[in-house]
Amino acid sequence: MARAHWGCCPWLVLLCGMYKITQDVHGYLPVTVVNTTMSLTALRQQMQTQNLSAYIIPDTDAHMNEYIGQHDERRAWITGFTGSAGTAVVTMKKAAVWTDSRYWTQAERQMDCNWELHKEVGTTPIVTWLLTEIPAGGHVGFDPFLLSIDTWESYDLALQGSNRQLVSITTNLVDLVWGSERPPVPNQPIYALQEAFTGSTWQEKVSGVRSQMQKHQKAPTAVLLSALEETAWLFNLRASDIPYNPFFYSYTLLTDSSIRLFANKSRFSSETLSYLNSSCTGPMCVQIEDYSQVRDSIQAYALGDVRIWIGTSYTMYGIYEVIPKEKLVTDTYSPVMMTKAVKNSKEQALLKASHVRDAVAVIRYLVWLEKNVPKGTVDEFSGAELMDKFRGEEQFSSGPSFETISASGLNAALAHYSPTKELNRKLSSDEMYLLDSGGQYWDGTTDITRTVHWGTPSAFQKEAYTRVLIGNIDLSRLIFPAATSGRMVEAFARRALWDAGLNYGHGTGHGIGNFLCVHEWPVGFQSNNIAMAKGMFTSIEPGYYKDGEFGIRLEDVALVVEAKTKYPGSYLTFEVVSFVPYDRNLIDVSLLSPEHLQYLNRYYQTIREKVGPELQRRQLLEEFEWLQQHTEPLAARAPDTASWTSVLVVSTLAILGWSV
Amino acid sequence: MARAHWGCCPWLVLLCGMYKITQDVHGYLPVTVVNTTMSLTALRQQMQTQNLSAYIIPDTDAHMNEYIGQHDERRAWITGFTGSAGTAVVTMKKAAVWTDSRYWTQAERQMDCNWELHKEVGTTPIVTWLLTEIPAGGHVGFDPFLLSIDTWESYDLALQGSNRQLVSITTNLVDLVWGSERPPVPNQPIYALQEAFTGSTWQEKVSGVRSQMQKHQKAPTAVLLSALEETAWLFNLRASDIPYNPFFYSYTLLTDSSIRLFANKSRFSSETLSYLNSSCTGPMCVQIEDYSQVRDSIQAYALGDVRIWIGTSYTMYGIYEVIPKEKLVTDTYSPVMMTKAVKNSKEQALLKASHVRDAVAVIRYLVWLEKNVPKGTVDEFSGAELMDKFRGEEQFSSGPSFETISASGLNAALAHYSPTKELNRKLSSDEMYLLDSGGQYWDGTTDITRTVHWGTPSAFQKEAYTRVLIGNIDLSRLIFPAATSGRMVEAFARRALWDAGLNYGHGTGHGIGNFLCVHEWPVGFQSNNIAMAKGMFTSIEPGYYKDGEFGIRLEDVALVVEAKTKYPGSYLTFEVVSFVPYDRNLIDVSLLSPEHLQYLNRYYQTIREKVGPELQRRQLLEEFEWLQQHTEPLAARAPDTASWTSVLVVSTLAILGWSV
Repeated sequence: MARAHWGCCPWLVLLCGMYKITQDVHGYLPVTVVNTTMSLTALRQQMQTQNLSAYIIPDTDAHMNEYIGQHDERRAWITGFTGSAGTAVVTMKKAAVWTDSRYWTQAERQMDCNWELHKEVGTTPIVTWLLTEIPAGGHVGFDPFLLSIDTWESYDLALQGSNRQLVSITTNLVDLVWGSERPPVPNQPIYALQEAFTGSTWQEKVSGVRSQMQKHQKAPTAVLLSALEETAWLFNLRASDIPYNPFFYSYTLLTDSSIRLFANKSRFSSETLSYLNSSCTGPMCVQIEDYSQVRDSIQAYALGDVRIWIGTSYTMYGIYEVIPKEKLVTDTYSPVMMTKAVKNSKEQALLKASHVRDAVAVIRYLVWLEKNVPKGTVDEFSGAELMDKFRGEEQFSSGPSFETISASGLNAALAHYSPTKELNRKLSSDEMYLLDSGGQYWDGTTDITRTVHWGTPSAFQKEAYTRVLIGNIDLSRLIFPAATSGRMVEAFARRALWDAGLNYGHGTGHGIGNFLCVHEWPVGFQSNNIAMAKGMFTSIEPGYYKDGEFGIRLEDVALVVEAKTKYPGSYLTFEVVSFVPYDRNLIDVSLLSPEHLQYLNRYYQTIREKVGPELQRRQLLEEFEWLQQHTEPLAARAPDTASWTSVLVVSTLAILGWSV
Repeated sequence: MARAHWGCCPWLVLLCGMYKITQDVHGYLPVTVVNTTMSLTALRQQMQTQNLSAYIIPDTDAHMNEYIGQHDERRAWITGFTGSAGTAVVTMKKAAVWTDSRYWTQAERQMDCNWELHKEVGTTPIVTWLLTEIPAGGHVGFDPFLLSIDTWESYDLALQGSNRQLVSITTNLVDLVWGSERPPVPNQPIYALQEAFTGSTWQEKVSGVRSQMQKHQKAPTAVLLSALEETAWLFNLRASDIPYNPFFYSYTLLTDSSIRLFANKSRFSSETLSYLNSSCTGPMCVQIEDYSQVRDSIQAYALGDVRIWIGTSYTMYGIYEVIPKEKLVTDTYSPVMMTKAVKNSKEQALLKASHVRDAVAVIRYLVWLEKNVPKGTVDEFSGAELMDKFRGEEQFSSGPSFETISASGLNAALAHYSPTKELNRKLSSDEMYLLDSGGQYWDGTTDITRTVHWGTPSAFQKEAYTRVLIGNIDLSRLIFPAATSGRMVEAFARRALWDAGLNYGHGTGHGIGNFLCVHEWPVGFQSNNIAMAKGMFTSIEPGYYKDGEFGIRLEDVALVVEAKTKYPGSYLTFEVVSFVPYDRNLIDVSLLSPEHLQYLNRYYQTIREKVGPELQRRQLLEEFEWLQQHTEPLAARAPDTASWTSVLVVSTLAILGWSV
């Protein structure tokens, strides 16, 4: 269905609520506004056919992907609002969107007068609104493949006793209206990773999961995998259906006697089909069934004497509702998510190797910036493009792992900022510059943030940067008992900031995959992350943001390793595998303790050892020189805080051999 | 019902399971075993009358008290096992107890062959056992006043679909069997605190709670208070029904137009009745109703157009089940629990004052020990008695706030160890000694732990002690954002231990009251504690325990106060209000940073300022002298770890004016 943009003055959008402007006054709305009247009319016709009083349009796809394909951007299409988070609900008379503060301005600019903006999130405000908008006895329709089990439960709970009923409709009504204009579902080949880039064969992984099924107290007969990364990991298969993530639309039903992969069969080459043993039907043969058949197939399988093991976090209600409760074995995360979280030694080596090459790309970019920023010819967008280009030139590159955040000055204080060709800021020696970027490589996924200043930073900028750095170091060098949850230790990344009355408003880190998700659950420092274990990789990324002025983030990826402690015990610590030096220009050495300096200098030595030879091998001599300079050992300077005075005196006396 | 102790050899108790020993072989069981055959027979008769296949006997009372009265020790009486934690279940053929590892040995020694010991906890293993022991269609009886809402829900959930049914029976069947032998319910006078010891009048508190009711989104018409400390706090009333806690059996139903206090009216003097305005019936008059009427009264009140606000954590199923769900307004903690958690300025001053006098008592004891332990005449039990005596001599004393933990050498490594007159260990200059004790005073409740060594501690003991001390200091001096949860910061108390591969297995702290509970929820560092706020008090108590050798704990009570940060913001920190110096003999100064030393010396200065004048006023000159010695400023010593070498050199150069 075609739609036109309104052309009008932005401030007049405010008139919507006051004068009930309709489409024939379209001269008075922002140019960015999308006319949704026709699509809404068509959607309401579909709702009427289904006898619905309301229809929920979530922002997810059927696999809880972080980045979703264009053909899944139903909420964006029906509302005009393209932000990544926000739920729409349409009744016969009204249409509304609920989104969080990051997107309020954008939503107001993009939505026409058909839509109300609600500045809240969660199901409670939506249900509260629904109860006033739809009559008793009304039906609230939803696509069960777009609601997670948890979300469905919260709608269901909130509506209990209200005489309004949730109705699951497997045909998506927005898709019916969208019709032929809806972008096609991706159809590129699905390919197998070369063995050099996999930690185990798919057969080994299948056997490992089956072994967990056998050991499980509730003896599941099958594991159902709904997250795309689960199927990609299990079979060592990749494609490019999702932006930034090398996945393909799929489900897997791995039973004790069969392997059923739901995907578009035409996308597999004969070599890949043979790699999957797909011509047979034994327990180690992958039968490929059509993606669209998954619900019916699960339902049919569930008729037998079976128990299906699911991870509730990634299973949508559309699958969940066809499995009788007594045949479900539920955990928060599937055994594949849990196994994938711990990398074996080959996967660790692969991920580390990708980080060495990634460091080369970042260092090339930093060296180039140092020369070109003073010329005044670099902007955030062209910079980001060059960063992506340098990464693309690295061996095994498969594009960026997320949209490069290239932010100068005050833009770095905005959450989720990315420049566009049209809207960007010039890089300058007078401002700080924040680069948060990462790559997909066949051997690993990377994610690193560095913040730099090419001129003279203010004392406050240096202090804030150094406190962020101390936070990074304090968490990175922390020794903690095995199986400690990240939530219990993430404050070590904040203490140095808190001490001065500073803080940051985001999480402290997330897991990362081997050519999989850049934000790989369930590893990390949030309350719903699992406990830390040897072999996990997580980012460590404290920051500080001064609204309207600058933003700092220092992000490294670290491997969880065993710690050697003075007294024996099962303890862990982190081994940082990101290899780009911090900006010496922004470090106030007087704030660092001897332990910080020692840690930092050891880290710099590691960078030299890992990245130096790679730069030399590639004849990147200017970069090699830069690396040597930027990894010179840092020396303690005279402390400037009162608390150090006593140690100075006492230490001096001690050195001079005086008794104290 | 009378019972006899078996007289026999301890190891033969193991025969129970093998030979089905019955009571006529009572010559072969430990002397500590209680014969429960008759009481069990009588209980099973009661169960038969009620048509029950099983009966659950929890370890709680009707108010979730931490310490329970003798007349509530039903589980102990019916099983013989007197440990504080453990649930019993009796079927027509079997009887079993579930308890945790702390109590396995004790339970085996105390229970006769009628009982099976299960070494698990939680409702799941109990229900799993029940399903094999009782027939389909069977009824499982329980006293609804002894199951919290959560516990009832977990039994209910586990039994769902099993064709076994939970049956709530308000008459306790154990009490019927116990009969006239059951200790009487306490009946001492209930008295009002003098105004000097209260933070607000009860009228102010009632108005405050009503104001919260009015502001509440769900407009509750009443608040129901089930925890004894809630009613005691609200009316500034105290008694001594519960060991260590100055409470009385009660409930309060505070409605928008009435105040209904459920208690034994005969326990109030005419002055107290007049203090409560109990002769009128207006909204500020306290109507006293009989304690036993609470369930019927709530049920009757719930017939009206009302909404009753409860804290689910302290409400038992016996109250919950008589309120229709749609008339319940639930929070985890009642508004009284939430309000009580934050002390106003008068309550803060009162609590601090009680800690100054408490420090005098502890210092008197430590000074006495220092002189008498070398004589070899002090044991753990006589020591604990003297500690309690010294506390009892302090102004406003109302007894200890919990059973004094006085533990020498290896005993200090045992959780929950308390000496008895019969079983105790001699204190010695060759061993460490741990004292964890506290007092109830009209103005406040105290809790402090100190660990001392009068001889020559080993290097490891000094290192462990110093690391525990560093943990205490690191958490005490932490600056953190307002509303941070304790769980997020408690690891600061562990870091110095973790660093060396050491740790402790208990929590890091708990709230404390004004002449209320020594473990006052919901303040603390656990995951179910509420966020920290200015005006809360919490203990900070890291430790280290070496099995079979020694135990260390350093516990202080601290007030949450606003922190002054370099940059403005809403930050908090702790102000320690326990005023007893640590043991210099156990501190390895070389492990302390300049910040630790600075903190410690400032704390010692505060101790001198707070406790010194009090000792002088009381003519406790020997104690005053001791205090001066033990609070001499500590000076840094030459560090002995490699990491300090660089700062020494660099600092020295800096002092000498050399450029580095």
